[in-house]
Amino acid sequence: MDERTLKERTKRTAQMLFHTLKSGTGFELWKKFDKDLARELSMFFTGVLYSREVLSQKQRELCAVAALTALHRPNEVRAHLHAALNVGATRQEVAEVIFQMVTYGGMPVVVDALEVYARVLAERGEPFPAEEPK
Amino acid sequence: MDERTLKERTKRTAQMLFHTLKSGTGFELWKKFDKDLARELSMFFTGVLYSREVLSQKQRELCAVAALTALHRPNEVRAHLHAALNVGATRQEVAEVIFQMVTYGGMPVVVDALEVYARVLAERGEPFPAEEPK
Amino acid sequence: MDERTLKERTKRTAQMLFHTLKSGTGFELWKKFDKDLARELSMFFTGVLYSREVLSQKQRELCAVAALTALHRPNEVRAHLHAALNVGATRQEVAEVIFQMVTYGGMPVVVDALEVYARVLAERGEPFPAEEPK
Amino acid sequence: MDERTLKERTKRTAQMLFHTLKSGTGFELWKKFDKDLARELSMFFTGVLYSREVLSQKQRELCAVAALTALHRPNEVRAHLHAALNVGATRQEVAEVIFQMVTYGGMPVVVDALEVYARVLAERGEPFPAEEPK
Amino acid sequence: MDERTLKERTKRTAQMLFHTLKSGTGFELWKKFDKDLARELSMFFTGVLYSREVLSQKQRELCAVAALTALHRPNEVRAHLHAALNVGATRQEVAEVIFQMVTYGGMPVVVDALEVYARVLAERGEPFPAEEPK
Amino acid sequence: MDERTLKERTKRTAQMLFHTLKSGTGFELWKKFDKDLARELSMFFTGVLYSREVLSQKQRELCAVAALTALHRPNEVRAHLHAALNVGATRQEVAEVIFQMVTYGGMPVVVDALEVYARVLAERGEPFPAEEPK
Repeated sequence: MDERTLKERTKRTAQMLFHTLKSGTGFELWKKFDKDLARELSMFFTGVLYSREVLSQKQRELCAVAALTALHRPNEVRAHLHAALNVGATRQEVAEVIFQMVTYGGMPVVVDALEVYARVLAERGEPFPAEEPK
Repeated sequence: MDERTLKERTKRTAQMLFHTLKSGTGFELWKKFDKDLARELSMFFTGVLYSREVLSQKQRELCAVAALTALHRPNEVRAHLHAALNVGATRQEVAEVIFQMVTYGGMPVVVDALEVYARVLAERGEPFPAEEPK
Repeated sequence: MDERTLKERTKRTAQMLFHTLKSGTGFELWKKFDKDLARELSMFFTGVLYSREVLSQKQRELCAVAALTALHRPNEVRAHLHAALNVGATRQEVAEVIFQMVTYGGMPVVVDALEVYARVLAERGEPFPAEEPK
Repeated sequence: MDERTLKERTKRTAQMLFHTLKSGTGFELWKKFDKDLARELSMFFTGVLYSREVLSQKQRELCAVAALTALHRPNEVRAHLHAALNVGATRQEVAEVIFQMVTYGGMPVVVDALEVYARVLAERGEPFPAEEPK
Repeated sequence: MDERTLKERTKRTAQMLFHTLKSGTGFELWKKFDKDLARELSMFFTGVLYSREVLSQKQRELCAVAALTALHRPNEVRAHLHAALNVGATRQEVAEVIFQMVTYGGMPVVVDALEVYARVLAERGEPFPAEEPK
Repeated sequence: MDERTLKERTKRTAQMLFHTLKSGTGFELWKKFDKDLARELSMFFTGVLYSREVLSQKQRELCAVAALTALHRPNEVRAHLHAALNVGATRQEVAEVIFQMVTYGGMPVVVDALEVYARVLAERGEPFPAEEPK
């Protein structure tokens, strides 16, 4: 793939996943430390990896939520909670993935991810899953 | 749910996910240490949690593979690689979930999960994804 | 065990361990996302597991502090620091368990748990262990 | 404490905890890489930290089993499973601590520690807890 | 080494590494919980281990930044980001070590360490690496 | 950078770091699962990231050993122990980095990395550091 196509793909995928994030992205932060590497990282992770089509975007983002919950990465799970909802996962499905992680990572990582999820729903003006008709 | 229904549900879900596993299950091991607790653990994780229907079984198992890869749990990922394939995930989809974990958990966890996956495919007599027509 | 007995046991154990916690419990948070699962989780972890009597409650809570310190889960260790003190561990014993974790988890997890412990002691109006006569 | 006293204390504590371990200890391994540092590490961890008396040895070793299970350190948990049994923990108590870790570290770490524990019991010629009268 | 020499070495190494840290050190915190153990910990980690000369201090501190980034210990990485710069690592070298950790620990740990690093540079009144002439 | 240059750089860096590894590399494994992604991963991690010159190769590899030891990744640390020695780190320096990790990751990760290091030295026909004149 030529570099121009890759850059466009990177931009389009980033926009699709993360357009509801208000605060600065990883990319903005990376650039302050190394511009070349920021571009390479962005093209690799967003342009190459996240743009692949073996998985649906919904499937991919639910797996991201699963891993980031289990690994206890509260800052980064916030971005992928937005992304999962942005590509069509329901609020119940996202909650279910977080709860499932009790099996692999224990209860504390579930609690911490649910607290982030509560803030994400507030940011988006959306209700808690248990308040919705199923 | 009454206890008899829960036990049947536990058995049915365990069978659906793990019938291709030859070696002993977690449940067999737990029983050697505490019979009551083995039964409670099995009913909670398999009968209650894994039997829920908010997510499809395929979706749930791909999230299990994601988390167990990222957490570096090679013994347990083996069981869920079987389960993911048993409930309809393709070989390419499973590989893609493992590769995606480089983003959240780094490359070493990807390499170690792929090595387990290679053994799982051999156990099942199935080819590597890159050897198949897409 | 019938469900009514299990619910009573869940409530009694939760009260014994966590009555000094002012802010919301995990259970309150879980219910916002899924009421059925919140109840199941609470009955399993608090009613079944934490209510068992193979270990003394003091023994169990010191092991909880050990694991949560080593795993670097500062939010959850706070609840179990309260619980350990609530079921009879001394302030010195709790500090000693945290310090011991340097062996298995390194110094940073000890420092972060001690900072949480300092806040817990302040919440309870209790002095630091080094300020007490031994 | 003068160095001679510290060395004696190191030796006595190591003997008490680990005399049933057949294979080489950490200390033997460290010495191949750096003799001075091996001695310092041994005196600090065994002579200073493990010899303290704020906790009983049984309490301390159950906390070690808790942390090493939760952190997924199967090689090192083996040594402390021996130590816990050597200083008076019962087989049921040790199993209970491992099971409890499902709460903080998830099920895979419990399974892997129970497999190590099964081997430790075999090494010692002792039965599984569920085979004993309670 | 006699205790007086060890104490002086501990103080000198601590001063060299951490003199730019404004807020309280680990040592101040440890003392509130156990004065004897605080002294032992400080002498072992700072006086014995960090004072060794097999590695240059710059090399040692870059390895500390590597490990603390990869392990996701944002509080402690702050101290060693100061230390690395205090013993002669350049701002670019420190950033490079953090970025390299994407390979072993994934992107979220890199992002979280870069955010800490941004605050450390602000505390020190130093510019971001990408704003400097190379 | 054009793709041909990047491929050459990837190959040259891989050769410099890993030419003493007898068994298959990550790249060989990745290709069985996805040829395109294997190439992208290899070019990104080896061609882009590891080929940068902000750090010396020796510095970079000691940081790799630090992180992989602390994260408890025994399979992958083996490759970077070879690489560190291949780019000029001494046996003592490599051992020192592993020992230093006791501070951030605890003793069990040090023990497990030293056991891998002992096997790496045997593979290379090199003596243990403590057997050499300093």
